[in-house]
Amino acid sequence: MAGTMLLRDVRPWGGAVTDIAVVDGRIAGIGAGLTAQGFVIEGRGRIAIPGLVEAHTHLDKNMLGLPWYRNEVGPRLIDKIDNERLNKRRLDIDPARQSARQALGSLAHGSTHIRSHVDVDTDHGLWGIEGVMQTRDRLRDVVDIELVAFPQSGMLVRPGTLELMDAALAAGAEVVGGLDPCAIERDPKGHLDAVFALAQKHGRPVDIHLHEPGEMGAFSMELIIERTRALGMQGRVVVSHAFCLGAPGQEHLFAALAEAGIAIMTTGAASRPVPPVVALRAAGVVVCAGNDGIRDTWSPYGNGDMVERAMLVGLRNNLRRDDEVEVALRVCTEGGAQAMGVARYGLDVGCDADIVLMPAESVAELVVARTPDRLVIKRGRIVAEGGVPSIAPP
Amino acid sequence: MAGTMLLRDVRPWGGAVTDIAVVDGRIAGIGAGLTAQGFVIEGRGRIAIPGLVEAHTHLDKNMLGLPWYRNEVGPRLIDKIDNERLNKRRLDIDPARQSARQALGSLAHGSTHIRSHVDVDTDHGLWGIEGVMQTRDRLRDVVDIELVAFPQSGMLVRPGTLELMDAALAAGAEVVGGLDPCAIERDPKGHLDAVFALAQKHGRPVDIHLHEPGEMGAFSMELIIERTRALGMQGRVVVSHAFCLGAPGQEHLFAALAEAGIAIMTTGAASRPVPPVVALRAAGVVVCAGNDGIRDTWSPYGNGDMVERAMLVGLRNNLRRDDEVEVALRVCTEGGAQAMGVARYGLDVGCDADIVLMPAESVAELVVARTPDRLVIKRGRIVAEGGVPSIAPP
Repeated sequence: MAGTMLLRDVRPWGGAVTDIAVVDGRIAGIGAGLTAQGFVIEGRGRIAIPGLVEAHTHLDKNMLGLPWYRNEVGPRLIDKIDNERLNKRRLDIDPARQSARQALGSLAHGSTHIRSHVDVDTDHGLWGIEGVMQTRDRLRDVVDIELVAFPQSGMLVRPGTLELMDAALAAGAEVVGGLDPCAIERDPKGHLDAVFALAQKHGRPVDIHLHEPGEMGAFSMELIIERTRALGMQGRVVVSHAFCLGAPGQEHLFAALAEAGIAIMTTGAASRPVPPVVALRAAGVVVCAGNDGIRDTWSPYGNGDMVERAMLVGLRNNLRRDDEVEVALRVCTEGGAQAMGVARYGLDVGCDADIVLMPAESVAELVVARTPDRLVIKRGRIVAEGGVPSIAPP
Repeated sequence: MAGTMLLRDVRPWGGAVTDIAVVDGRIAGIGAGLTAQGFVIEGRGRIAIPGLVEAHTHLDKNMLGLPWYRNEVGPRLIDKIDNERLNKRRLDIDPARQSARQALGSLAHGSTHIRSHVDVDTDHGLWGIEGVMQTRDRLRDVVDIELVAFPQSGMLVRPGTLELMDAALAAGAEVVGGLDPCAIERDPKGHLDAVFALAQKHGRPVDIHLHEPGEMGAFSMELIIERTRALGMQGRVVVSHAFCLGAPGQEHLFAALAEAGIAIMTTGAASRPVPPVVALRAAGVVVCAGNDGIRDTWSPYGNGDMVERAMLVGLRNNLRRDDEVEVALRVCTEGGAQAMGVARYGLDVGCDADIVLMPAESVAELVVARTPDRLVIKRGRIVAEGGVPSIAPP
């Protein structure tokens, strides 16, 4: 009866009380009064949502469980990049161990799918990729992890990195990453041609960090849109952060992004312009969310909780009405699944039984109260309860 | 031995381990190896901070413990104001009961001082003021609450409100409130003259809600500065929200605010321009913070936790270095005490023993981790532990 259970008296997305039958890890039926097969979970009216989707984090660089890191880093992006690369070994930020710690913490908060950018650079080679792949494989039964080979320190500007990116993808990283084609790489055409060439060669999707503000970011975005369309990669490209979409006057890009099938990832960053979630979705753009790096040399904030991230996205986008707050949670669940192309996702018959139960009167209450009382189910098995994952972190 | 205890092995503000002796509710000594008088609390290296200061909330309007309120309110400020006033009785938002619920929840999170704006309007008269005063008096031994008589629905635009404000102050509200002199009141001179006249008549400080953006808000701010200086009210005026200070080109006001001794209250609102905390403090302006309304008809967010508020202020102001994150917590403690004129505040000999103990390696970790493991002491007595206040909420 592996992955077979009955969730009795749960409320999918806060709706009416019903039962969810799970057989062999998939949702086999939804309706009141279903007959129990396997283990029975008494929902007692708890809300059921599909597994949360952490669509953008950096599993390889958190410092969970390490001595507190006193952040004295300079204010520029390049300060943070250089500081991290130069101190990673000294600070014992072992990607295998740290990624397992964070992934299991995320799982305990209810994330059943994680996309992690993982550093690839000439100082550390594939140390990160190999470590996170180890975690991905070890935790395969409890959480789905995919890796983005990410040239954090630059790709063309640091000779040898492109070859390492190629090797990371050959080794099993699932997605091609990229980074600020103008601001960091100084060669937007060269950078994006190289990123999309890797994607074509390996048949992989793309996820590009685009911090560039205003007109510069909008220019890079246009180049990404052009390549996505030219190569027929609609539905396989994500632009992360995309602060330029929060600048005035860039609304013309929304329809172009929708037409090119490019998804946007936001953290709801409070101190930067951000992509406007409601307007983008209204234009037909898929929007997903992530916690980005947590507790690392970049920033001390974050706990890996995608319900808290929904709250932060809601606060940043001034989502107050119940239907608006629910949008924030949809972004942190369905939006991520759609952006990452997760198959069989959702609370429908035939979907994988990746389900989180939380007590709340409404979806909006679930988001704002962020109760730690969570039951997390992955393909029909309980993988975390009350903040404790079924596998102990290292 | 009332209010007499020894806190052994604590770390004030994350510094070296020491002891804090409390006698008759006040800090009597700080140093290693003090002799125990009264009850001994084993700090085990926990960080000690002074009681958190909730410098801006609305105790009278939360819906804690009531059925979930489905928010379908319109987007304008006036939509929220009217919706609340018209539905308050129907929704059973009883100010006495609700203020006690919120105040005890805040206390459990570590707030030992609360400034609450309380609605005064012609529909409800002094219902709010009387209810919150009842809570203030009932909880006098565990938390200090002060009331701002707040003309939420307008003062001059709603005849009869000014007289009610006068009555609220006569009845015991400690502070004179005001609201958007241009945008809501349509008569900035008239409104501010009336507010400051009440302050003069009753000998009370002033705390004005100023949501007005950009140039309009800056104009209202100038009028507030002029009156504060002319009446010698330096150190007795707070401007809350002050979104206009986050607009470009308003930096010239910083020095004027410092010179006029006007404090600024921020929530670190993620979806609005906000007063820049670091720049204001550098200019000599006192900055405090508050949660504003929580779980009410305006917005579902918020839990009354001023440590979480410090995190939100930190995120909004992009405070990442340890010394910067500490600033966010200083704003939520000392800043509030200074803005509200709290006497004997802090972790010094002679101060009231209002102390919160939390396990953390550093102040920055305390802010970002927001552990619920908190011991809250008010004038030398334990008033909350692990999220449970010593007095049960109604």
